[in-house]
Amino acid sequence: MASSLRDQLSSVSSLAEVDSRSTPGFDGGKKHAKKALASLGDELADLQRRLYANGVGDDQDPRSMLLVLQGMDTSGKGGVIRRAVGLVDPLGLRITSFKKPTTEELDHDFLWRIEKGLPQSGVIGVFDRSHYEDVLICRVRELAPPDEIERRYGAINDFEQAYVDGGGTIVKCMLHISADDQKKRLGARLEDPAKHWKYNPADLDERARWSEYQRAYEVALERCSTEAAPWFVVPSGRKWYRNWAVATLMLEHLRELDLTWPEPDFDIEAEKTRLAAG
Amino acid sequence: MASSLRDQLSSVSSLAEVDSRSTPGFDGGKKHAKKALASLGDELADLQRRLYANGVGDDQDPRSMLLVLQGMDTSGKGGVIRRAVGLVDPLGLRITSFKKPTTEELDHDFLWRIEKGLPQSGVIGVFDRSHYEDVLICRVRELAPPDEIERRYGAINDFEQAYVDGGGTIVKCMLHISADDQKKRLGARLEDPAKHWKYNPADLDERARWSEYQRAYEVALERCSTEAAPWFVVPSGRKWYRNWAVATLMLEHLRELDLTWPEPDFDIEAEKTRLAAG
Repeated sequence: MASSLRDQLSSVSSLAEVDSRSTPGFDGGKKHAKKALASLGDELADLQRRLYANGVGDDQDPRSMLLVLQGMDTSGKGGVIRRAVGLVDPLGLRITSFKKPTTEELDHDFLWRIEKGLPQSGVIGVFDRSHYEDVLICRVRELAPPDEIERRYGAINDFEQAYVDGGGTIVKCMLHISADDQKKRLGARLEDPAKHWKYNPADLDERARWSEYQRAYEVALERCSTEAAPWFVVPSGRKWYRNWAVATLMLEHLRELDLTWPEPDFDIEAEKTRLAAG
Repeated sequence: MASSLRDQLSSVSSLAEVDSRSTPGFDGGKKHAKKALASLGDELADLQRRLYANGVGDDQDPRSMLLVLQGMDTSGKGGVIRRAVGLVDPLGLRITSFKKPTTEELDHDFLWRIEKGLPQSGVIGVFDRSHYEDVLICRVRELAPPDEIERRYGAINDFEQAYVDGGGTIVKCMLHISADDQKKRLGARLEDPAKHWKYNPADLDERARWSEYQRAYEVALERCSTEAAPWFVVPSGRKWYRNWAVATLMLEHLRELDLTWPEPDFDIEAEKTRLAAG
């Protein structure tokens, strides 16, 4: 693996060209990937703790990270949170699931509820769906006028740029599956009583608009892949690759922050003396 | 292990009687405990997922769980979150760390910020420190008048009863260490650059009031151990026991909820037919 995974997964021009069951950047199969995921867990957890230690300290390090997870139903947003995000200390996580907006949320600009979900310094925020729903389902279902949808691409770019300018690192993952992958997974949900709760008959109505959604994703990927916040298309037909890939993307981005432990703002020897006396 | 851990750890009348390095309910040492913790993780994660599945569904199951973690500095609240709470899906967790109250928080009743941290249905809330600080540090440091402190014990009991009446299960753990345990751990923080950020010279000022804090804890344990929300004193001088014990307490409480998977509110066969056609 000479080049980084981030270089390999950005710059997708058409989703149709991406094989959902491909495994770019990973040589090996399921067993190998599960082992690789577990073994990168230690470094991921260590870097997250450094980020947290700096963020909660008095030195006002504003850095934080935001992982945005988008994808069609069954693409595995929940699985990524459990298997990849779950490798780090939950105390340093802030996970927000964006569902159908409430009446109060609809009374505000679409970014109002998103802004409230941004992580504080030191924390890794995770968006389970996100502001991109406002240019995905809203576009496909015409839940907003075309010029408002049009306005949103730029508003999203400005919003993400502002987050990055404030010390944030943003990792946007589009969990890419095929219509066939989805069919199998919805079928599995119907077969398993432990998965019935995840199934909603309305999911099939959205599924019927598959190509419209793919088109909406392509527009969003193109309009909102900026230098500050590029999109990564993660082939997600194989769950083990998907989990490994998202964890690896988080890791690569955290490594770039060169996270050191904060310097003590007290005299270590003096404190040792005080402690010994008490 | 005939009786449950919850029976063994409740009903403490004096903290001085509890050996912080004892391991009630557990036969074996560190290696054995780490294995036991990992092996109960599957059941814990499964029950948490059932709780979540019911809570997010349309059947309006109001059940949730709240884990309250209290203890002196270095008692291991963070370690419990990482090692025990971290066994479950982070999507179903809501962790709130209560620090020194802000000006806005001080302008409200002490329970105002606490109420906002309660988990929604289906979720396991975790309080890293809690409303008990308002009868612990506030009592020791006289941050509120005596009659206000006195009022708070009853207010806490009413608040916790209301949470339980609304479908909540509350598990309150006092992570009990000795002054010697703390001395060793503060010393370790001073030795390790990766732990300096956790050290604050002011911690030694609190440490100087050790016996006053123990007394304040004893009063809180006595006044606020109710049938709805008893306190558990978890000997925490051995980290591996502490982590195993808190996970076991969570597990025992979740088992009592008899959590089944939610029934589907749709016709499974009809959906299979629709899916096959699409």
